[in-house]
Amino acid sequence: MTGRGTLERVLAGFEAGQTAALARAVSIIEDQREGHETLAAILHPRLGRARRIGLTGPPGAGKSTLTTLLAERYLAAGLKVGIVAVDPTSPFTGGALLGDRVRMERVALHPNVFIRSMATRGSLGGLAAMTREVCDVLDAFGMDRILVETVGVGQSELDIARLADTSTVILVPESGDAIQTLKAGVMEIADCFVVNKADRPGADRLRNDIEVMLGLRGGGGPTPDAHHGVDLKALHPKRQAREAAARDDDSWTPPVLRTVGATGDGVPELIAALDRHFAYLERTGTLHARRRERLRDRVRDVVEHRIQRRLWRDAAIRQWVEDQLPALERGEVTPFTVAEALLARGVAAGTFTGQAP
Amino acid sequence: MTGRGTLERVLAGFEAGQTAALARAVSIIEDQREGHETLAAILHPRLGRARRIGLTGPPGAGKSTLTTLLAERYLAAGLKVGIVAVDPTSPFTGGALLGDRVRMERVALHPNVFIRSMATRGSLGGLAAMTREVCDVLDAFGMDRILVETVGVGQSELDIARLADTSTVILVPESGDAIQTLKAGVMEIADCFVVNKADRPGADRLRNDIEVMLGLRGGGGPTPDAHHGVDLKALHPKRQAREAAARDDDSWTPPVLRTVGATGDGVPELIAALDRHFAYLERTGTLHARRRERLRDRVRDVVEHRIQRRLWRDAAIRQWVEDQLPALERGEVTPFTVAEALLARGVAAGTFTGQAP
Repeated sequence: MTGRGTLERVLAGFEAGQTAALARAVSIIEDQREGHETLAAILHPRLGRARRIGLTGPPGAGKSTLTTLLAERYLAAGLKVGIVAVDPTSPFTGGALLGDRVRMERVALHPNVFIRSMATRGSLGGLAAMTREVCDVLDAFGMDRILVETVGVGQSELDIARLADTSTVILVPESGDAIQTLKAGVMEIADCFVVNKADRPGADRLRNDIEVMLGLRGGGGPTPDAHHGVDLKALHPKRQAREAAARDDDSWTPPVLRTVGATGDGVPELIAALDRHFAYLERTGTLHARRRERLRDRVRDVVEHRIQRRLWRDAAIRQWVEDQLPALERGEVTPFTVAEALLARGVAAGTFTGQAP
Repeated sequence: MTGRGTLERVLAGFEAGQTAALARAVSIIEDQREGHETLAAILHPRLGRARRIGLTGPPGAGKSTLTTLLAERYLAAGLKVGIVAVDPTSPFTGGALLGDRVRMERVALHPNVFIRSMATRGSLGGLAAMTREVCDVLDAFGMDRILVETVGVGQSELDIARLADTSTVILVPESGDAIQTLKAGVMEIADCFVVNKADRPGADRLRNDIEVMLGLRGGGGPTPDAHHGVDLKALHPKRQAREAAARDDDSWTPPVLRTVGATGDGVPELIAALDRHFAYLERTGTLHARRRERLRDRVRDVVEHRIQRRLWRDAAIRQWVEDQLPALERGEVTPFTVAEALLARGVAAGTFTGQAP
């Protein structure tokens, strides 16, 4: 229960830059407490300040460490930083996949940082939508950078990565042999690749392999990866387009950077690459296009959420479905005929527009 | 493109028990080719023969091996067996999580078996719905047992497990220490626990821990798990209810079985337990309730799918949303006001009932 008084206090806290108010607002949104839509609507005009940076990769790639290192540098530069750690948790492992929380706690004490961990609640599709809404709250609060760390255990983190202005994919030499199995989706979302733990054997080969997949290397003659016995280039359908685009000044070719989380080596170069990418986004109108796409998705989600809520919370609709089940069980009607009749009933009763009695 | 001629050939193949027709039908459903709803509607009255058995657990628990061993025994008993292997694939690992396919190929040659692997396409929620539809096709074909193997890497496999008449959770001694992190959801869905690789150290302790969580052991005095420093019993909210139910003859207490996949030890006992559970489901009306729940979900999914398709494929609706985006970007309107206006327009235009021009 979130009364109007609570919302007003939250907003006053936002004006004053109080982290406690931010924490409160995030909880209202995340738990979908009463008033969460009012809050989101009030915050909506404040969106657009923050740069949203996604960091995704397989377990053990060092995402938490790099996220922390980035946050430390941004904080040192006087910026306000939000961190959202998203864990599409396995019911068998709990939150174990999110790595080095200890290191992250080091920055958590800084007054200009806010950290939130999010775990799966219900469907994973819902998690991506919820992550976007939490990022919106952080943005409205006035964060300069929002770092979204997602552990790579499913299709879902691709959806989450798409919420970012800049998506960074972090790999480690150990994942080198697995690069053939990287799905096209991963390559498509990456604005920036990081080979972390780059002091380990295989780092150069991994970097090379990524560049071959991106079409930055290889061509005529034997490629450096010929010993793999796999044509890496053929794995990436958009490679030709990227090669052509690479000759165009207003295009972006994902850089492949090297970092060592343990020492911080390469982090300044990563920061510079993220800045370059953001400048590219702004210069070419891609930033506007990506943010417009997020708004489009947001409208779509609100519409679908309202429809579902109105349909399935409607006692008359639910009872009507119950009444059809015996005939469905006997095979006299099908889910399709029942669905069609339900839609007609819902429209007639004003269910979709919230006009139902 | 699936013409009426194709559907008729598929149905004739069903009558004749031809596996090729089954493969064709599954593909039509899985790829949502034209005519897939017609096919599903035609098959709907044939549902209900198969017993659907879910097998889920963490990677490395030996699910594929146990699935194969079960299939071999069912086939030897003259039953027809469908196997659906579901992999909520990570984009970073490809299909590597689904284990021992080689062993499964041994049974694949049997004329009375049909095996289908399913990987993530789009959202994971969609995967659960798709798995249910594929199981429906196998059921309509006349399978006696459908084994649904799901690798445990996300919330999603809980949704998939719920599709089964009987859900089996497979653990190994190595997961013993992790049992504290097993989420309540896993305990809730399990009709049957299997401690696989039970010849390894820690098997007895794992079994004991599961039984404590189920409320089958422990009570007053120090419990065998006291050295964990964790009150396992407190982790399971429904424990009290289960303890009470265990005193009732018409209740089901999940047995904790031991198997050794490498030797097949314990598989006959697992088969017997699955049979006992099915008898319990039938005797108590739980089978009817579970299947009714599946039908309810099916109707819900069809309704939501149709709404989404009609809304977002409607060019006028899409254009109208585009027209709102500039005002949304300026913060003059919110996603909520736009959504509400869109719903009203959709209803007025007959979009929901497919009446739009």
